Amino acid sequence: MVGMATRRIQSSEESRRLLVTAAAELFADRGYRQTSFIEIADRAGISRGSIPWHFGNKLGLLKAVIDDQLDAVLAAAAPSANDRSGDPFDQVMAFIRLPVTRLFITLLAEAVEVGSPIREHYARLHTALRDAARARISAEALPPGTTQEAFAVVLVGTLIGVHAQWRVAPDAVDLRAVQAALRALLPAGLIEM
Amino acid sequence: MVGMATRRIQSSEESRRLLVTAAAELFADRGYRQTSFIEIADRAGISRGSIPWHFGNKLGLLKAVIDDQLDAVLAAAAPSANDRSGDPFDQVMAFIRLPVTRLFITLLAEAVEVGSPIREHYARLHTALRDAARARISAEALPPGTTQEAFAVVLVGTLIGVHAQWRVAPDAVDLRAVQAALRALLPAGLIEM
Repeated sequence: MVGMATRRIQSSEESRRLLVTAAAELFADRGYRQTSFIEIADRAGISRGSIPWHFGNKLGLLKAVIDDQLDAVLAAAAPSANDRSGDPFDQVMAFIRLPVTRLFITLLAEAVEVGSPIREHYARLHTALRDAARARISAEALPPGTTQEAFAVVLVGTLIGVHAQWRVAPDAVDLRAVQAALRALLPAGLIEM
Repeated sequence: MVGMATRRIQSSEESRRLLVTAAAELFADRGYRQTSFIEIADRAGISRGSIPWHFGNKLGLLKAVIDDQLDAVLAAAAPSANDRSGDPFDQVMAFIRLPVTRLFITLLAEAVEVGSPIREHYARLHTALRDAARARISAEALPPGTTQEAFAVVLVGTLIGVHAQWRVAPDAVDLRAVQAALRALLPAGLIEM
């Protein structure tokens, strides 16, 4: 009985995972509004009725997709526990190159529409990214007249805007060179890696 | 006769201007694909048949809209001829706040779609912004191992990403504080104002 219950739970978590992955891919391809429960379930190979069971409504599914992406980008930005000498920028640049990261751009366009139902959810993504950046910015090393929050906006903004330019024209944007420029620009000690 | 010809030319240029403004607003609201010639002409109060005459096809109109926005952002970034002590960042931040600047986000989402017809046009916008930024970056002040082009990607990227965050949550992003952080971050002499 315990074994059966465990299997059922694992299967439910796997269904959830398949649905989140399918939704992320479809949202990245055609946006939130244009994607239906039916398409998501079909791509995931999961029964259509299970989406409300897992996520409530489509906004609940969007929240799960955004949380999932946020976990991935924060994990990418975290220095590896195994390799403290690793450059977090390497991981962030690798994250930028993932096909599904295009999702950030597709959803952004919908989030800034007047009366957008997804704005609040998207705003939470930016807030979480800024919070993570701010936690890395040394209060002691701040130039006079500046704040950790403002540097967090700049840092997160730079990654958003580098991603946008690379996504539009990957051959015109050398992510390695950008990484070197960013390293040179950030004063020693300002960002705690 | 000269007077009449002049009036006709002015009227044609005014029609063109009204159409570009209407197209920019509609593209910003609902994207390029979802906007029809008919809606653009109706909003501009111009005869529908005049759009092909002015712009060829919808891509021609998009090109005119992008060129127009590009002129506006480059003018904003240029130091004022009358006030050399003015801060170009003030102008760029003012540009970011304009309602129509949302266009950059709406079109970006369409530009990064697979097989997008507008990608090339949008890519030219980024290229022109990077060219303008690069022209301001001092080759002599470059940190070792970095390039003007990479700093141009970073600089343009920062503005794109600050705009995105402000557009999603204007109350959470203090553009004045961001401007101060940017000023503090850019090494003296690297950007020629």
